[in-house]
Amino acid sequence: MTTHDTGNDRMNGAESLVRTLLAGGVDTCFANPGTSEMHFVAALDQIAGMHCVLGLQENIVTGMADGYYRIAGKPACTLLHCGPGLANGTANLHNARRARSGIVNIVGDQATYHRPLDAPLTADTDGLARVVSNWVRTTTAAADVGRDAAAAIQAARTHPGQIATLILPSDASWDAGGVVADVPPPPSPAAINPRAVEEAERMLRGGGRTLLLLAGDGVRATSQELAWRIAKATGADLMADFVNGRLERGRGRAPIQRVPYGADAALKALAPYGQIILVNARPPVGFFAYPGKPSIRYRANAKLHVLSRPEQRAEDALQALVDALGAPEAAIPSPEPAREIGRGAPSAEGLAQTIAALMPEGAIVSDESISYGHGLYHATHAAPPHDWLHLTGGAIGDGLPVATGAAVAGRRERRVIGIQADGAALYSLQSLWTQARERLPVTTIILNNRRYGVLLGEYERVGAVPGENAMAMLSLGEPGMSWVKLAEGFGVEAATATTLEQCADLLRESFRHPSPFVIELMT
Amino acid sequence: MTTHDTGNDRMNGAESLVRTLLAGGVDTCFANPGTSEMHFVAALDQIAGMHCVLGLQENIVTGMADGYYRIAGKPACTLLHCGPGLANGTANLHNARRARSGIVNIVGDQATYHRPLDAPLTADTDGLARVVSNWVRTTTAAADVGRDAAAAIQAARTHPGQIATLILPSDASWDAGGVVADVPPPPSPAAINPRAVEEAERMLRGGGRTLLLLAGDGVRATSQELAWRIAKATGADLMADFVNGRLERGRGRAPIQRVPYGADAALKALAPYGQIILVNARPPVGFFAYPGKPSIRYRANAKLHVLSRPEQRAEDALQALVDALGAPEAAIPSPEPAREIGRGAPSAEGLAQTIAALMPEGAIVSDESISYGHGLYHATHAAPPHDWLHLTGGAIGDGLPVATGAAVAGRRERRVIGIQADGAALYSLQSLWTQARERLPVTTIILNNRRYGVLLGEYERVGAVPGENAMAMLSLGEPGMSWVKLAEGFGVEAATATTLEQCADLLRESFRHPSPFVIELMT
Repeated sequence: MTTHDTGNDRMNGAESLVRTLLAGGVDTCFANPGTSEMHFVAALDQIAGMHCVLGLQENIVTGMADGYYRIAGKPACTLLHCGPGLANGTANLHNARRARSGIVNIVGDQATYHRPLDAPLTADTDGLARVVSNWVRTTTAAADVGRDAAAAIQAARTHPGQIATLILPSDASWDAGGVVADVPPPPSPAAINPRAVEEAERMLRGGGRTLLLLAGDGVRATSQELAWRIAKATGADLMADFVNGRLERGRGRAPIQRVPYGADAALKALAPYGQIILVNARPPVGFFAYPGKPSIRYRANAKLHVLSRPEQRAEDALQALVDALGAPEAAIPSPEPAREIGRGAPSAEGLAQTIAALMPEGAIVSDESISYGHGLYHATHAAPPHDWLHLTGGAIGDGLPVATGAAVAGRRERRVIGIQADGAALYSLQSLWTQARERLPVTTIILNNRRYGVLLGEYERVGAVPGENAMAMLSLGEPGMSWVKLAEGFGVEAATATTLEQCADLLRESFRHPSPFVIELMT
Repeated sequence: MTTHDTGNDRMNGAESLVRTLLAGGVDTCFANPGTSEMHFVAALDQIAGMHCVLGLQENIVTGMADGYYRIAGKPACTLLHCGPGLANGTANLHNARRARSGIVNIVGDQATYHRPLDAPLTADTDGLARVVSNWVRTTTAAADVGRDAAAAIQAARTHPGQIATLILPSDASWDAGGVVADVPPPPSPAAINPRAVEEAERMLRGGGRTLLLLAGDGVRATSQELAWRIAKATGADLMADFVNGRLERGRGRAPIQRVPYGADAALKALAPYGQIILVNARPPVGFFAYPGKPSIRYRANAKLHVLSRPEQRAEDALQALVDALGAPEAAIPSPEPAREIGRGAPSAEGLAQTIAALMPEGAIVSDESISYGHGLYHATHAAPPHDWLHLTGGAIGDGLPVATGAAVAGRRERRVIGIQADGAALYSLQSLWTQARERLPVTTIILNNRRYGVLLGEYERVGAVPGENAMAMLSLGEPGMSWVKLAEGFGVEAATATTLEQCADLLRESFRHPSPFVIELMT
């Protein structure tokens, strides 16, 4: 990659970093800085163009960057402080990696000559970074900062998105000699293999129950249209992965079921298929193993065929298959618009109906509803077109920060609706403050059931009745939390709803104001 | 180590784990469980004797285990869920490692046969564990769980304390064939090297300004008495490390200054010393490097001598030196008891005076006051005897959980006082809920200055005036947080104080009730 001299010998590493990021199209920085990043902060202050968004804890920061990428389609950078700061943000980087989001992490670290002294905050930053990153580099001199940042941006932009972590010792940041670097385009995704297309065509023409399992960009609207044509032309079924980084849904989009979460339901759903064609999807397996149940969710004798890998473009693969099959245009049927809200005591189906009826067009749903959420999927198909974001890596605590980052990416113009289990919300409730500070149009529905619902279900699956010690670890009552007070404590307006009508009223009111709001829904 | 058959062929791995933990004296479990730990939860439910304490996020869990060890002097176990759960708790494990606390982490993980399928929550658990652990093992069969847990306990109890992480695949937990194991005693610490004692004696007798730098158990009361005798007999000075896991303070304890945090102050404090004898301390270096300032805090030509390493017993080393010097008994002078509270607008000195005057005997102070705290040290020497716990690893967010775990270790009989910077408190505010749930006598003073005070100081050191982007990352106002609402949201009573008199009234009231309380002190 090329670098160019700006004619300013006194540019330090931090300044070359900021200028390289901006030149590479990275104009949003989710930050939680520390002492070793002060020169980077100073450079962000002195050079115009970067939108800096503070997160109160690093898992908020990385979760926001994940949500941002899923909507903006381009990476933001994060600013994290040393190994422990990176560790704090690792769980949501794990989720982002599973969502295949692109992120440029800038991790400030001890000065190169200070690190061997093993000062208190010193940790194995590189070791931590490698656990969740597709690309890691530690810069060691100011002159290399621009070059390395350009490489990080290129890595983050590599389809469909990668976690790139640049570790920046403080002296590389403050020393003079920074050089701004041009960011080369990322490599093109690998072309679709014609023989993989031929084999898929052969399977589809050969009869037998066949499933097209879609994941990654295979669940975006353009891919759905192509998959729908294939399904109509061949009689194959369509299904999406259980978790998806960004699922385009609502009227006009294909009515695609997801692989169920529960072992028995998933096994039943996939049992009919002797053939499964994987479109950017991986073979469906359980989140967890259970005694006496198979780990895989498909028939042991099913034939699995990889049409395209996650690193390829699903749209290209599906287009090639449409062409091979000569599959004609096929209109996707749309249900009647949802008009009726749910009534009475909250239920998943009633809440879904309510959200579908009230959701503005172009909304973004950040879904960390966990156990409650399995009932939300069906009714929301009748909502206006919207994006639905899942917890992709299973590390709870991504819902609130993903919603926050998505709202930043939506430039405050798209309503974000968080559907949020209470236990998971407690991992990253600090996100609410950033929503208030940035005046983001995020409406969060906290599903307050005062327990780890999913775990009580799992516990019963172990075959036990929860006693004192189990409830000590699975209940969130005693004392019950007040989500209204917690939200207000962070500067976000909030109210409690105990019926779906109340919830609907609060949703309507919230959608009228370009500011965050929390609805504590007692379930 | 020996194992014994319980005559119960149907004992599963999880049950053998719980019975081995209890047999090894580990009777407190700080937990945040997930699906893969349900059999462990069931075993904890069915076998009496373990006190299970829920943390709402893993950094609360690990921070509580750190605070527990510092006061109880024996390890608790943690229960964490998979790699991302461990990652969430890594920052406070980093702090615990720096405090040399002993902790037995039990990290549930994917079943051995499920892990290769790379389900969404699968991560490099072993890689993460190695970053912060002194001992790591992944058990692979139920029959080995007891043996491996015993080894983990032994490792955690190795002087002065170690982080031991046992990764437990779910099938090792649920399979039958568990065997309870006896826990062998940990190896004795290495004996003190007589030649190291001779050299220290020679240095002290030789004249020249000499400093005894104390750390680890070198700052406990018994060590202080010995160090005081050495100081009185030889004219040497005493100093403690800047951060200490547990510093015994108050009247009757030696008036030992700490190495200052700031570079200039630390260089000035250590400049007089041509000789530094390290008692379980490491050579004093800066937390961070700064341009143009040395990384080390002592004179470049000073002679540093290691009397004892952190893994040895400071008391033994100091006793040997007392004996070699023939240093006579020497009474430690005590200041008059603090009686007057501070008055008017809050200041660090006034707050210290107030706390010193009101603190009950045997209190525990969890100090995460960061920038505010440098002024707290002097006046509290006149308080009744108490323990003072520092943020040992510099990874902010340990104050609230360490206070919570310390209160558990104090069996609700010792008052815990948290002196807590607001920015750092936001990392782990969920701790307040555990304090309410466990009805712990913790009084937390939140120093609400609505900014990252330490970072603004660091920023000015860069030589810059903070502009819009810098303040976007360094200010915590806009909106200001209400700590009263946040605490009440978690079920903890709270009130705001704007003067030291109000703060004193709230402290007095709080000390009368065996329950948690939050004082939001506007500073």
